[in-house]
Amino acid sequence: MASTYRVLLFLLSIPLLSSFISPASSQHEHPLDPLTPAEFSLVRRAVMRSYGASSGNVTFQYVGLDEPDKPLVYSWVSNQADKIPPRRRASVVVRFHEETHELVVDLSSRQPSVVSKEVYHGHGFPLLTLEEQTAASDLPRTHDQFIRSIEKRGLDMSNVVCSDSSVGWYGEQRSRRVLKILAYYTNGTANFYMRPIEGIDIVVDLDLMKIVKYHDRFTTTVPMAEHTEYRLEKQHPPFGPPLKGAAVVQPHGPGFEIKGHIISWANWKFHLGFDVRVGPIVSLASIYDLEKSRYRQVLYRAYISEVFVPYMDPTEEWYYKTYFDSGEFGFGLSSVPLQPGADCPENAVFMDGFYAGQDGIPVKIPNVTCVFEKYAGNIMWRHTEVEIPDEPITEVRSDVSLVVRSVSTVGNYDYILDWEFKPSGAIKFEVGLIGLLEVKAVNYTHAVEIKEDEYGTMVGANTIATHHDHFLTYHLDLDVDGSPNSFVKTRLITKAVADNSVPRKSYWTVSSETARTESEAQLRLGLEPCNLIVVNPNKRTKVGNDVGYRLIPGPIASPLLFRDDYPQIRGAFTNNNLWVTPYNKSEKWAGGRYVDQSRGDDTLAVWTKRNRKIENEDIVLWYTLGFHHIPYQEDFPTMPTLSSGFELRPSNFFDRNLVLKTKSPEPVSPSCKH
Amino acid sequence: MASTYRVLLFLLSIPLLSSFISPASSQHEHPLDPLTPAEFSLVRRAVMRSYGASSGNVTFQYVGLDEPDKPLVYSWVSNQADKIPPRRRASVVVRFHEETHELVVDLSSRQPSVVSKEVYHGHGFPLLTLEEQTAASDLPRTHDQFIRSIEKRGLDMSNVVCSDSSVGWYGEQRSRRVLKILAYYTNGTANFYMRPIEGIDIVVDLDLMKIVKYHDRFTTTVPMAEHTEYRLEKQHPPFGPPLKGAAVVQPHGPGFEIKGHIISWANWKFHLGFDVRVGPIVSLASIYDLEKSRYRQVLYRAYISEVFVPYMDPTEEWYYKTYFDSGEFGFGLSSVPLQPGADCPENAVFMDGFYAGQDGIPVKIPNVTCVFEKYAGNIMWRHTEVEIPDEPITEVRSDVSLVVRSVSTVGNYDYILDWEFKPSGAIKFEVGLIGLLEVKAVNYTHAVEIKEDEYGTMVGANTIATHHDHFLTYHLDLDVDGSPNSFVKTRLITKAVADNSVPRKSYWTVSSETARTESEAQLRLGLEPCNLIVVNPNKRTKVGNDVGYRLIPGPIASPLLFRDDYPQIRGAFTNNNLWVTPYNKSEKWAGGRYVDQSRGDDTLAVWTKRNRKIENEDIVLWYTLGFHHIPYQEDFPTMPTLSSGFELRPSNFFDRNLVLKTKSPEPVSPSCKH
Repeated sequence: MASTYRVLLFLLSIPLLSSFISPASSQHEHPLDPLTPAEFSLVRRAVMRSYGASSGNVTFQYVGLDEPDKPLVYSWVSNQADKIPPRRRASVVVRFHEETHELVVDLSSRQPSVVSKEVYHGHGFPLLTLEEQTAASDLPRTHDQFIRSIEKRGLDMSNVVCSDSSVGWYGEQRSRRVLKILAYYTNGTANFYMRPIEGIDIVVDLDLMKIVKYHDRFTTTVPMAEHTEYRLEKQHPPFGPPLKGAAVVQPHGPGFEIKGHIISWANWKFHLGFDVRVGPIVSLASIYDLEKSRYRQVLYRAYISEVFVPYMDPTEEWYYKTYFDSGEFGFGLSSVPLQPGADCPENAVFMDGFYAGQDGIPVKIPNVTCVFEKYAGNIMWRHTEVEIPDEPITEVRSDVSLVVRSVSTVGNYDYILDWEFKPSGAIKFEVGLIGLLEVKAVNYTHAVEIKEDEYGTMVGANTIATHHDHFLTYHLDLDVDGSPNSFVKTRLITKAVADNSVPRKSYWTVSSETARTESEAQLRLGLEPCNLIVVNPNKRTKVGNDVGYRLIPGPIASPLLFRDDYPQIRGAFTNNNLWVTPYNKSEKWAGGRYVDQSRGDDTLAVWTKRNRKIENEDIVLWYTLGFHHIPYQEDFPTMPTLSSGFELRPSNFFDRNLVLKTKSPEPVSPSCKH
Repeated sequence: MASTYRVLLFLLSIPLLSSFISPASSQHEHPLDPLTPAEFSLVRRAVMRSYGASSGNVTFQYVGLDEPDKPLVYSWVSNQADKIPPRRRASVVVRFHEETHELVVDLSSRQPSVVSKEVYHGHGFPLLTLEEQTAASDLPRTHDQFIRSIEKRGLDMSNVVCSDSSVGWYGEQRSRRVLKILAYYTNGTANFYMRPIEGIDIVVDLDLMKIVKYHDRFTTTVPMAEHTEYRLEKQHPPFGPPLKGAAVVQPHGPGFEIKGHIISWANWKFHLGFDVRVGPIVSLASIYDLEKSRYRQVLYRAYISEVFVPYMDPTEEWYYKTYFDSGEFGFGLSSVPLQPGADCPENAVFMDGFYAGQDGIPVKIPNVTCVFEKYAGNIMWRHTEVEIPDEPITEVRSDVSLVVRSVSTVGNYDYILDWEFKPSGAIKFEVGLIGLLEVKAVNYTHAVEIKEDEYGTMVGANTIATHHDHFLTYHLDLDVDGSPNSFVKTRLITKAVADNSVPRKSYWTVSSETARTESEAQLRLGLEPCNLIVVNPNKRTKVGNDVGYRLIPGPIASPLLFRDDYPQIRGAFTNNNLWVTPYNKSEKWAGGRYVDQSRGDDTLAVWTKRNRKIENEDIVLWYTLGFHHIPYQEDFPTMPTLSSGFELRPSNFFDRNLVLKTKSPEPVSPSCKH
């Protein structure tokens, strides 16, 4: 999944470091701000200096903010004027002479310096850089055996595109840092994914940067892939139905304000960051309480912690395809520049993102997130009342919400990631799967010829779209009205009616259980109806309910692989839809710190074996949503959006519905005049 | 749930029958058009005439289109020019001398006439009219015992509002047609639901129209219900966050066309009707196939067939509250006029609905449905490609969909019902629950005082919001590329890897089963992952897949009452989330024809006991979505929207994704100039 030409592309747009002055990224104004381009450069200089003459062998695999301890952040936030901001530190992972090194760079001192440097001896490897993926994907082109394989198939090398795939871990005792290379045949189409060159197994050793295994096992027809080109300018008539255009017009301007990385809108205030590994990060989301005349904390830090995508074809050329899109490829590194007016509507405001390239030099992803007010024609609240004599009432408030959007494109798949904030206090998390399928070439041209399992759907001649899953694990560090929180599972229980004076036989009621330890909170959803609530047991509403926020799941999916199968050992953090852990700054990524070729010894499923106390503690929720994807022909040659999501909603957090005192958005004349 | 003043209100807007000329309702142009006001009048005349001198005792409980047989409709649709339209007939239910009569009136002859008239001898009673609910709710006000009860509580009768409740069935051998009456205390607030006067049991016999049972069992404090008034003009500062306004501007006009009841938009065409019992009905939805150059059928007729709302308080004054909002109160009768710019955005077009009042005279519900294009800032399809040398590609199509909306307000609850048509061929069904909670008055003012189950959440002083469910059962008569269809359940099955040459241990694959009979199709969702597909086994895609549409469920809920409990016997159609029946014109309503005080002998659960063949037949899907509602304080005194839904999506219906050839909506300058 190399992104061959992006680095070049974005580097072109970066002149000198001193010119990095965009409103959202110029200077860090907040302890949770992502590293600025200037800071990336300082980090690079400090790291290079620490390696002295050998620094030419250093590759930067990860550079990100080493976030300050939570109490320091809260302390700074609560009284910015009086406080010195917490020290700025960067967390760095480099490869050096076939070793993984972990460094911390202090950026607060006048001379930024490496304050710690350790060699990592555990399993697994760091994030793949775009540069090394590109280099690996370029190797076959000049490899004799590959040249012969392409000739043997009667194909033209100039139309061959190579991409890379992580290899997973399947019980090997010793792991070299390797990738597999996949070959496709463009032949004029942009949609080369629909033209796989099947049967060749190519392994590249990244430390040696050479092909170390080559096996051309069999050939199949390369699919003609007719009608799979997706670029509009390459389409021929007839075109689909014409769609009338519209613009969302805000004559009084947008309702939100962005200051640095702090976004304020309606009753919400939050910090929007960006990290090369996880993509966008929402921090310190708090909501204004009109009655208490102050902001109240909801979420300390939330992001997509890991994305697990196992394919379900067990044949030799496919079995290993079990991707960890975040830990292997970087959900931030895979973020793409959003197209104004298309990826985000006309009323959107965009922010840039930065990361360190393999050489440590900052790279800009322009328009990596967008923020816009969504006027979808929904109703915030309404009621029609006709029962009061002579006083028919219709009361309607129309809805508006604030959306933060990013898109991560990991190879063929595009993930649309939306965070939607609502005036009611709800936050909706939505993920839309879109892009292109990963398909396998076969010799069949019609479904009737298929006599055994081909592990997917025939979507076109010679083309099988393979069954697969997507699991996204969200890290949700809720701090509901403060840090000490508890997780409460409210089950619905059917009871027999005890009172003989009524003829009814049954009803359901609730039974709430507070999870005392990690094991008590683990939950595979769908087995029984329940409500999932994070409460602050130290705060109560006026009538005495624990203040809380609940997680409302959307459609549910759970993994189907054997628990002891290698991919599932590595992806064991998806074994439950919900886990709760005590806050631990080092437990950021559900799949572990080093996910490429990981062995599952550093996942959420392992951390929680300690069965730590989580009652009235600073806790973190880990929620996994999933898709079992059986492809259909409509997913070919491009996929229509398949969405899932969940919601966080205030649940006895306020004394009453906020919306009561919230007016509809101010009326705007559709003639677009002030 | 009487709507006391609506009838009067709407009648005022109806001058003479001849003036009923609105584009959508003037004359029937299509065999599935709902009855026009003129037709309602003809029906009334014919029915009254058939009762002669006694016609003064007739009350109209239901008047609707007696839809023509399906083959006649299809035949007319396929060749309108040559065909005489099928006969227009009305289906009528009246009460007459304590009997329920079923009539059919033929409207096609010069002199409309009753062509059949039968006395119904089964269990259950027809739809409640607004007029009889109002009359029943007015009775206590002049009832001596009630006057004394109000005095005893120190309340002022002029502030008392009465509403009615259906009574259900709890095993009685003989049923009179009765309602219970509930009392509330407005005392200046519109939100009287938050001020129930508890402890009084009042039963009204509708045929006698008098109070036949009165029991004042106990008194509780009437909640003060502070801060529960929801009208904006009665609110005091501070107000909630100000929301900036926006308008969706379509300088080139809307993209849809409404001719009579036929709506065309993008690649979709469908008929939008309205019925007093079920509300909006979408018929003959078909989608244009660009490659086949013709419309292909998807849906013959779809609507919400029944809505079951059991409350979970088993005490004497509450146990019977198990509402069937459609069969008892009429989801169409409960539909409310939509407010332009609030219930539906500025770019919406509205249609009116009509029904027969208790006296048979047509009543208009203005703006009963709205149709609008939704520009929510979503992405229809996108991909960023960086792997092709020198050819970075970003291809994005922005999304637009067509929404058909209505709102049914049944007493305290408002249901927002959206049908969303997409250019990709998907149809999304969404229901939003909103409005007000039904609460119980108690003497407690703080949760700490509660020592035993109060069957709900304390949402305010002296106020318990009672646990309850909402189940909505959709009637989905899919005709996928023609009427003979099969239902296929595709299960996901984990398999061990047989091939020892690969180290992977497991994968999942699919196993598709075609349901041969009704029992094989019944499904309670959530137990195992599966895809639910309606296929046309007689039609295949080019590569040989059965053409189909699949149902993608949203969040799932199933009933928790004992199966042999009376409400659940009546609501047994919710026992499965999915049922499939062979098409039968008489099986329209999942809860049976006569739901008020029904005994469960005419529900979907009973019909399907015949276990009819459904393979390669004209089949109907019945899908139930549900909510278990544990109230929270944020649901008080008004509810923020709680949504659920599902989607129908083409699944091997087309050879490939339609969106490929669909351009983004034409660009519009936000300056609002052409």
